[in-house]
Amino acid sequence: MSKKSLGNKSCLYPYPVTILGANVNGKANFMTLAFIGIVNANPGMVAFGCNKRHYTNGGIKENLTFSINIPSKNMIKAVDYIGCVSGEKTDKSGLFKIFYGKLDTAPMVDDCPLCLECKVLKILDLGGFDDIVIGEIVECYCEENCLSSNNLPDIEKLQPYMLSMYENRYFSLGEYLGKAWNIGLNYTAEK
Amino acid sequence: MSKKSLGNKSCLYPYPVTILGANVNGKANFMTLAFIGIVNANPGMVAFGCNKRHYTNGGIKENLTFSINIPSKNMIKAVDYIGCVSGEKTDKSGLFKIFYGKLDTAPMVDDCPLCLECKVLKILDLGGFDDIVIGEIVECYCEENCLSSNNLPDIEKLQPYMLSMYENRYFSLGEYLGKAWNIGLNYTAEK
Repeated sequence: MSKKSLGNKSCLYPYPVTILGANVNGKANFMTLAFIGIVNANPGMVAFGCNKRHYTNGGIKENLTFSINIPSKNMIKAVDYIGCVSGEKTDKSGLFKIFYGKLDTAPMVDDCPLCLECKVLKILDLGGFDDIVIGEIVECYCEENCLSSNNLPDIEKLQPYMLSMYENRYFSLGEYLGKAWNIGLNYTAEK
Repeated sequence: MSKKSLGNKSCLYPYPVTILGANVNGKANFMTLAFIGIVNANPGMVAFGCNKRHYTNGGIKENLTFSINIPSKNMIKAVDYIGCVSGEKTDKSGLFKIFYGKLDTAPMVDDCPLCLECKVLKILDLGGFDDIVIGEIVECYCEENCLSSNNLPDIEKLQPYMLSMYENRYFSLGEYLGKAWNIGLNYTAEK
């Protein structure tokens, strides 16, 4: 294969599109977040990057709680909007129906089919523009009509969507390809 | 909406399917990794969870370098396979065509259209089964035939694929939905 060097770019495709929620000065605020991933399985832990100058960042440090909400693709315009305007200038608390869980200060988006309520474990500054926030998922809330028969989230019912960075394009979930920890069990490399 | 509590599950959908590469005792080893996300934009930084007992974990600590490789969906069986067998018992160094970059000790998978060469910035143990590894992307290598006209990766040419956890199902990338930081610019909530 013939490869070209692109520098130190954040090319980790695809990115999940999520909504980060936090209370700032006692009021719910939300922003679009795609720089996020799971970093521990059980208990679930997330790590994400949050620009030090973002309004939401202050709320996370204020309460040490936050939420990660997984929107469906039919929410694409609202979710794009909250990534375009800052909570410092625009009150975003009325854009969604909100609920709170056991932590009391992590506002969650009821319109999203899946919401993760989280508490901060650690905030790191490694010299970039972003603070690196690591949080523990204390509770997941899933729409009942998005659950499978065994009471786990069904991704085809959730219809999450993805971001492609640099190109800045959104994509839906595609077709089912196969079962994990299964489809390659008997793989042997062709030489 | 009507939501059900599911406990502290790692429900961050969808997960990107990647290959984590590291040299272990001087030999390339690879494993499937989906617990990963970007945590800083520029320079690109990734955070991921790596089970403390995984063979690859030892190699990351040995060299403080690793690679993240984005496979195309046509590699699904090989990539599933390396998530099913441990490098401790099975030599996976011959499964792929490998190359090294500027760090010398981060083996990359040439068969993957996109490879991120990384150095460790920090390894955290927050009490879970996984070590949380934070690394800086020092170089990206992209297949020339997967670049767009402006020399950035084109996700539709890369054809990455995704994992849905708990269900353990793989999904392809779906259709284009719209432009980010654009499609919702004029959004107003319907009351």
